[in-house]
Amino acid sequence: MRLTSTALLFLLLLISCNSLAIKPQLLGRHTVQTYPHHTSVSYKTFYFDQQIDHFGFLENGTFKQRYLLNDQHWHKEGGPILFYTGNEGDITWFCNNTGFMWDVAERLGAMLVFAEHRYYGESMPFGDESYSNAKYLNFLTSEQALADFAVLIKALKTTLPGAQKSSVIAIGGSYGGMLAAWLRMKYPSAVVGALAASAPIWQFIVPCGEFYKVVTHDFTISGTNCSSNIRRSWAAIDRVSATGDGLQWLSQEFGLCSSLKTPDEVYGFKAWLQETWVNLAMVDYPYEANFLQPLPAWPVKVVCKSLNFDTGVSDKQLLNGISQAIKVYYNYTGDAVCLNTSQTATGNLGLLGWYYQSCTEMVMPMCTDGIIDMFEPQSWNFQAFSDECYNQFGVRPREDWAEIVYGGRNISAHSNIIFSNGNLDPWMSGGVTTSLSESLVAIMIDGGAHHLDLRYNNKLDPESVIKTRELEVRYFKEWLKQAATTQ
Amino acid sequence: MRLTSTALLFLLLLISCNSLAIKPQLLGRHTVQTYPHHTSVSYKTFYFDQQIDHFGFLENGTFKQRYLLNDQHWHKEGGPILFYTGNEGDITWFCNNTGFMWDVAERLGAMLVFAEHRYYGESMPFGDESYSNAKYLNFLTSEQALADFAVLIKALKTTLPGAQKSSVIAIGGSYGGMLAAWLRMKYPSAVVGALAASAPIWQFIVPCGEFYKVVTHDFTISGTNCSSNIRRSWAAIDRVSATGDGLQWLSQEFGLCSSLKTPDEVYGFKAWLQETWVNLAMVDYPYEANFLQPLPAWPVKVVCKSLNFDTGVSDKQLLNGISQAIKVYYNYTGDAVCLNTSQTATGNLGLLGWYYQSCTEMVMPMCTDGIIDMFEPQSWNFQAFSDECYNQFGVRPREDWAEIVYGGRNISAHSNIIFSNGNLDPWMSGGVTTSLSESLVAIMIDGGAHHLDLRYNNKLDPESVIKTRELEVRYFKEWLKQAATTQ
Repeated sequence: MRLTSTALLFLLLLISCNSLAIKPQLLGRHTVQTYPHHTSVSYKTFYFDQQIDHFGFLENGTFKQRYLLNDQHWHKEGGPILFYTGNEGDITWFCNNTGFMWDVAERLGAMLVFAEHRYYGESMPFGDESYSNAKYLNFLTSEQALADFAVLIKALKTTLPGAQKSSVIAIGGSYGGMLAAWLRMKYPSAVVGALAASAPIWQFIVPCGEFYKVVTHDFTISGTNCSSNIRRSWAAIDRVSATGDGLQWLSQEFGLCSSLKTPDEVYGFKAWLQETWVNLAMVDYPYEANFLQPLPAWPVKVVCKSLNFDTGVSDKQLLNGISQAIKVYYNYTGDAVCLNTSQTATGNLGLLGWYYQSCTEMVMPMCTDGIIDMFEPQSWNFQAFSDECYNQFGVRPREDWAEIVYGGRNISAHSNIIFSNGNLDPWMSGGVTTSLSESLVAIMIDGGAHHLDLRYNNKLDPESVIKTRELEVRYFKEWLKQAATTQ
Repeated sequence: MRLTSTALLFLLLLISCNSLAIKPQLLGRHTVQTYPHHTSVSYKTFYFDQQIDHFGFLENGTFKQRYLLNDQHWHKEGGPILFYTGNEGDITWFCNNTGFMWDVAERLGAMLVFAEHRYYGESMPFGDESYSNAKYLNFLTSEQALADFAVLIKALKTTLPGAQKSSVIAIGGSYGGMLAAWLRMKYPSAVVGALAASAPIWQFIVPCGEFYKVVTHDFTISGTNCSSNIRRSWAAIDRVSATGDGLQWLSQEFGLCSSLKTPDEVYGFKAWLQETWVNLAMVDYPYEANFLQPLPAWPVKVVCKSLNFDTGVSDKQLLNGISQAIKVYYNYTGDAVCLNTSQTATGNLGLLGWYYQSCTEMVMPMCTDGIIDMFEPQSWNFQAFSDECYNQFGVRPREDWAEIVYGGRNISAHSNIIFSNGNLDPWMSGGVTTSLSESLVAIMIDGGAHHLDLRYNNKLDPESVIKTRELEVRYFKEWLKQAATTQ
C-alpha cells in the first residue's frame, strides 16, 4: 500500500502540468503551440541514438532518445543552451510547462533543449516491450539517464554548427531538478551550472514524517480548523462506513462513480483522499491554473472554506464538508458526472516507471503519525516495502545507494547549483533550503508551491517568485561569464 | 597485434612491483612482511560484501571484495584514512609497493586501507568463472570499481569504531591513480582529496604518438646514439632474419629459449623488444630495485652503454649491442638460462582483465612513426582494434565514453587532487602536467620514472622526489584541515 502511495505522490510532479498533451512529432517536424497570454511554444522534435547501457558493454544496443529543440532566439557562436533534464514523463508536457525557459530565452540569446528521460514518453529502450519484464527494465536508473544527458550534450556541442562554444545550463523541476543538480555534480564538464527547482535531493535521508508535516501545515495556515477537520475525517469515515447504509451514504455524498462496498475499498477511498490533499498542497498556485484538473487561485484556501466549521460537528456534517472540499479539486468546472477514486488526476504516463525507480534507487521513506500531521498513522517499513517491490518487479530497493552515489548532505565540493524551493511545497522537506556555499545557493520562495519558478510569468505572481526568477537569471549570467573566462 | 601491445603496456603498472607475492590471507588474519631498510608492512585482510552491479537491480548478487587494513599508527576519533584505490592486479602487490603510505602513516596518525579492484587478485565477482564469458565480465568497469570504493568507504566510516570523524584521502598510482582522481571527482563526499600518481587520465585524448615519444626521449638522453641504434635495429632484424642462418644466429645471439622460425615469430620478437624498452623507461629508477626482474640503478643508462657505438656498424654488430642491452633487463643477476619472448616480466595476474578494460572503456590510442620515436611505424586503427576486441571478448570499445564520463580536459570544477608525474615516465604523456587551479595541482618530478613518489624513501632518492613527497603531505594536511572546519 505504502508503495502505491509513495510512488503516486512523486508522480504527481508530472501530473501537475498542462492538460494539453502534444501529439508526438515526426523527426524534425515543427510544432507550434500557442497559449493565451504566454510566449508561444515552438520546437522541432529529434531522436538521438543512445546506448541502452552506458555502464556495461554486453548490451550494445541503442534506442531513440527524443529531444525537443528551439533555436529561435539563440545567438550562435557562444549563446548558451538551456537544457531541460527530463523527468518521469512525456517530455512535451515538461516542455509546455516550463514557461520560465521560454520566457528567458530571448534575453539570454539561448537555445532551448528538452531531453526526454529514458523509459518515459517515446524514449523506450525496448519499444513496447520496455516494461514487459525485469530484464528490460534493468536500464531504468537515474545514472543511465544522466549519462544519456551527458552524451547528448556532447553530441549537440560537437555536431550543431555554432554550438562548440555554447555553454550549457541544466534546468529541471522536481525529479528533473534532482537530475539537473546531479548532472552538474557528476558531469561538470557537460554543464556550467544547474537550476534544481523543487528538487528533494535529500528526501532519501530526512525523517520520514517531514513531507506530510508540510502538507498539513499548508492546510493549517489556509483556514480555521482546516487541518483539524481533515485529521478528524478518517475516524469519521471508519464509523460511517461500518454499516451498509453508511457506505451508501458516503458513496452518494461524494458522488463516487463506483459505490464503496468492502473495507479494502474504504481503505482505497481514504488513500485517494490523502493523495488529493497532497496534490492540492503541491499545486497551491496563486492564480487559476488549468492542470489535469482545472483549479481556482490558491486552491487550498478555497478547499479550506468548506472545512472551517467547528470541530464538534457530527460525522456526516464533517464528511459533507470534506466532500465539498474534495470537489474543488475534482469538479471546479462543474462538469464532472461522478468522482473516480482510482485516479487523482487524468493520464498515467510514467506511473509504472516511477514505481520501478522508487523500488530500486529512489527510496524515499514516508510516514504519518496523525499528531504532527493530519493523516492516519502509518509507519515506514522498509522490509514490507522491499517485499512489495520484489513481488511487483522482481527487484529489491537498495536503501543506502542514493545517499552514497549522490553524496547525501556532504555536497559542498560541488559548485554552481541553485536549489529553489517553495515554502508551500511538501517536497521542500527533502530539498536544500539553506545555501551551502557561495555557489551552492538555496532560494526559498515565500508563498510558492511546487516549482512555481519554472512556470510562465503571470500577472498574479507574488513578488517572491518574480525576484527568484531574476536571481536565477543573474546566476546563469555569472556562470556563463565564468565559463567564458576559463575556456 | 596492437591490442596486445597496448594492453600489455599498461599492465606493466602492476608488474613494476615487488617480486614477493604475498599469499592470500584468511579473513582478519595478520600478515607481517619485513623488507630490508624499509618500514615493515603489516596488515589484516578483510572481505567486504559488495554488489556485483551497482547500476542495475536485476543482478542482485554480491561478491567478496578484499581489502587490507593497518591501524597501528591511527589516531582514533579524527585520524585520517589513506585509502589506496587498487588497480589491475593483486592488492597485496600494491600494498607492498606503495611504501610512501607506510612511510607517512605515523606522521599523519593515519589508518591505511588497500582496496582491491574487482576482477583482480581475489576479488572475483563470479569466482573462478569470472573470466569465462562476456556475461560475467560485464561488471568489470572503472565505474563499478569506483562505486565499490565509495560503498566500502561508507561502510568503514559507519562501522569502524572511531572512524566516523575520519576523513579519507584516496591514493593511487597509474590506473590506480586515475581511479583515485576519479573517485574524488565522482564521489567527493567519500574522499576529501586524492593523490593521483602517474595517472594518465588524458591518455584517451592525447595524440597517439605521445607515449612512445617519451620512451624514445629517455633513451636519447641516456647515452650517445642510444635511441638511434634502437631505431636502426628493426630493419637490421628484418635483414638478418631473411635467411635461415640469420634466424639461427639471432636466436643464439639473444639466447632465446625457443628459436625463431617464422615471420610471425620475428614479429613477436620485435614486439617483445619494444615492450622491453617501454618497461625500462617506466622503471628507470635511481637505485637498484628488485622488481619482477632485478635491475641496476638507472637501468636505461646501463642499457645505453651497450648501444653507444657509431651508427655505421654492421647489422650483426648492432644486434649484438641490442642483445647485450636487453640482457640488462632479463639477466642482470646472470641467472637466466635463456630468454623467453612470450613474456616481458614474470607473473600475468590481471593481464586478461586489463585487455578487457582496454577493449571497452579504457581506449588509449597508441601509434609510432619511426621518426620522432625509435619504433617501427604503426598507425592507430580504431576499427581494427574494435574488431580484434569483438573477436576476443564479444564486446566493442566505445571510443568517446571515457572522455564524456570523466570530463576530458574540462575538469576544473573539481578540487583537491594532486597529479604527480615523473618526466622520465612514458605515461606522463597522458597526465596532467600543469596545475589547473589552486586545488588541482600538478607536480613534475625531475628524473622520476613511473610513480616514483609512491615508492619507499630511499637514500638515493633525488631531491625532486623528496620535495614532492613533502608537498604531497602538506596538501594532505591542508585537505584534512579544510574538512575539519566544514564538518
